[in-house]
Amino acid sequence: MIAEAIFTGTEMLLGQIVNTNAAYLGRQLAAAGINLYRQVVVGDNLERIREAINNARRRADLIIVGGGLGPTEDDLSREALAAALNLPLVEDAAARENVTRYFAARRRPMPPGNLKQALLPAGARALDNPYGTAAGIFLEHEEKIYALLPGPPREFEPMVVDRLLPLLESYGARREVIFSRVLKIAGMGESAVEEVLKDLLHGDNPTLAPLAKPGEVTLRLTARAGNPEQARELIMPLEAAIRERLGDYIFGSDADTLEGVTGTILAGRHLTLAVAESCTGGLLAHRVTNVPGSSDYFLGGMVTYSNEAKIKLLGVAEEILAAHGAVSPEVAAAMARGVRRAFAADIGVGITGIAGPGGSTPAKPVGLVYIGLDIQGKVEVQRELFVGERENIKWQSAQTALYLLWRGLRSNPYN
Amino acid sequence: MIAEAIFTGTEMLLGQIVNTNAAYLGRQLAAAGINLYRQVVVGDNLERIREAINNARRRADLIIVGGGLGPTEDDLSREALAAALNLPLVEDAAARENVTRYFAARRRPMPPGNLKQALLPAGARALDNPYGTAAGIFLEHEEKIYALLPGPPREFEPMVVDRLLPLLESYGARREVIFSRVLKIAGMGESAVEEVLKDLLHGDNPTLAPLAKPGEVTLRLTARAGNPEQARELIMPLEAAIRERLGDYIFGSDADTLEGVTGTILAGRHLTLAVAESCTGGLLAHRVTNVPGSSDYFLGGMVTYSNEAKIKLLGVAEEILAAHGAVSPEVAAAMARGVRRAFAADIGVGITGIAGPGGSTPAKPVGLVYIGLDIQGKVEVQRELFVGERENIKWQSAQTALYLLWRGLRSNPYN
Repeated sequence: MIAEAIFTGTEMLLGQIVNTNAAYLGRQLAAAGINLYRQVVVGDNLERIREAINNARRRADLIIVGGGLGPTEDDLSREALAAALNLPLVEDAAARENVTRYFAARRRPMPPGNLKQALLPAGARALDNPYGTAAGIFLEHEEKIYALLPGPPREFEPMVVDRLLPLLESYGARREVIFSRVLKIAGMGESAVEEVLKDLLHGDNPTLAPLAKPGEVTLRLTARAGNPEQARELIMPLEAAIRERLGDYIFGSDADTLEGVTGTILAGRHLTLAVAESCTGGLLAHRVTNVPGSSDYFLGGMVTYSNEAKIKLLGVAEEILAAHGAVSPEVAAAMARGVRRAFAADIGVGITGIAGPGGSTPAKPVGLVYIGLDIQGKVEVQRELFVGERENIKWQSAQTALYLLWRGLRSNPYN
Repeated sequence: MIAEAIFTGTEMLLGQIVNTNAAYLGRQLAAAGINLYRQVVVGDNLERIREAINNARRRADLIIVGGGLGPTEDDLSREALAAALNLPLVEDAAARENVTRYFAARRRPMPPGNLKQALLPAGARALDNPYGTAAGIFLEHEEKIYALLPGPPREFEPMVVDRLLPLLESYGARREVIFSRVLKIAGMGESAVEEVLKDLLHGDNPTLAPLAKPGEVTLRLTARAGNPEQARELIMPLEAAIRERLGDYIFGSDADTLEGVTGTILAGRHLTLAVAESCTGGLLAHRVTNVPGSSDYFLGGMVTYSNEAKIKLLGVAEEILAAHGAVSPEVAAAMARGVRRAFAADIGVGITGIAGPGGSTPAKPVGLVYIGLDIQGKVEVQRELFVGERENIKWQSAQTALYLLWRGLRSNPYN
């Protein structure tokens, strides 16, 4: 099955937003064994969308259109498909239900403009969209398949996975599969990872591709085979070799996050956590609480920007602050201890550092960060010197704190 | 001048990398007054790149190809252009210099594969690339312009700005500029905004395009004119009309953020802020502290997930928790008051709600959030019922808290 994807939106042509749907769709189609040969971006223009659909159906079996299903006059994908195939637009009960239900749940009246979201080209079926007003559109017509999906990623992504791919499977899409597995690494930089894995980087099937993100390196292992089982078997020995070399630097795989794997250990061991943050400003607590169910182990956090707050709320001794300054290993340790005590938690984390751009001195440059970890009274501090902008330094600090916490939990037979 | 952009790279079709060159090129062409009507992504396949070039030259005056100029057998853009236009590839002294100089500077022998980077279609000129081995290719042929640029963004971006755009200027590209201004709205949904602005949405020059994000609606006003001054003049009356209708729902423009504009007011009035968070879990403090210089007005925050923490650290009365539950207007108000007192701040914010997926009851569904705001002793609480996943509800809650804070600061003659 050969696919072509069309994305609509003048804001993408003007470079005002990046088309992340394209990459997401590419990954999902590849995993389903569907060959995506072309992506096209056109503006919110009926004639150009229609032309793109007409060109695509000459080359491909499956034509996917992302965007242009909204209620405004700039949203023209349903009209363009109807025009390209010479089909009338007719009201569909399920599509109508999708849009009316959205406003009913919010107890708001439906603006009249939204009514057009109930219209589908004759013969099409609605794809349910629980996250927005626009149902997707699925149409089989003259041996081609057309799928129109809403543009916002939080609606587009679940519709690809939950609605479109299951439907395509029934059309026999899965003949050759591409299977990918991602290993996630923290505590080690990209060049160090590549050095260790140098001889493994040039394989053909499976392939191994490293990708660096702030505070994290991911390794993508990809195999092609006749079915998912065979592909997994191709990947297994490569994964084993990587795990042997990188050991505890690999904190997870695929959709794992550091906050998620850490939370799983905390929940499993019935340990509780509290965090004290200075330079990360709440980011660590935010990430910990992004995990559903984190209220089972996360007792709370404090963001103590001022010295007064560190003294009053965390019990950091004034003498320590005076002798070593707020950005020091001593204060990181005292913050970890203090927040553990304040919340009566098993584990406390304290972060103090200079996120910049201001606040640095020759002895304490932007990026200098100390992370304290108090696991049931055993306290350790790590010093880091991160490079980057303010938000990047915040991110790397929170990432490293989570990694130290995860490694500390793994290596210690507490509880 | 109408342009079409072609990007080559199977890794983009597989979704392994996001095509950031597309957005970059779009912005630069828009600023130069060149209309980009289409972007196409094709894999590393000679026939498909050739077909994309042939299609593009029927529709556009300027055809830009990004990627495929490297030394490997997968790099096929120069070959595809030569094939599309029926031109031979010939060695070019400047392109050869570009590649040999690269290896000479690194004192490494040149691999033989790189030799093909010295070849250009007959009649083309090399665009110097100081950041890599591949010179760009610029060709005028039968009244069309072709520009082939190297794919890595650190080579692509400077070549667009330093080589391609100056050359195009001599072809009269800068006759028309596109000038955009973005107005940012909170506290009002997309459909409500569109309803209010309905009669303004169909203009041709300037155009007005709404875009919905979680907790925010942006309006993009775009004008075309002979120079930036004229474009700004076209936009001014439209902006004035929008501001008259939306008033204080517009919190900023262009790169403004709610945390930024709020911080500017706080700093300007020498007011201090402290926040108490339950369901947002630190996100509000994180966003406040993303603003450089926020340590001037942000004293700190508490993340109080448990009732014990709300009682002990924020001084929320046990009776209030027992009578109304943790998710209640009374507790939101008590949290705002309590955190203001704990940090001795001018302003306290308290957020309590149910981010889900667990923790809901029939009377208190997922998405129910109360936001308390204590500005120098005057306390208000707002109730919200957000729809979405956990992270989305956290985001909307923090967004609404910032908006209420901003509006409260604007409308009250405090200090």
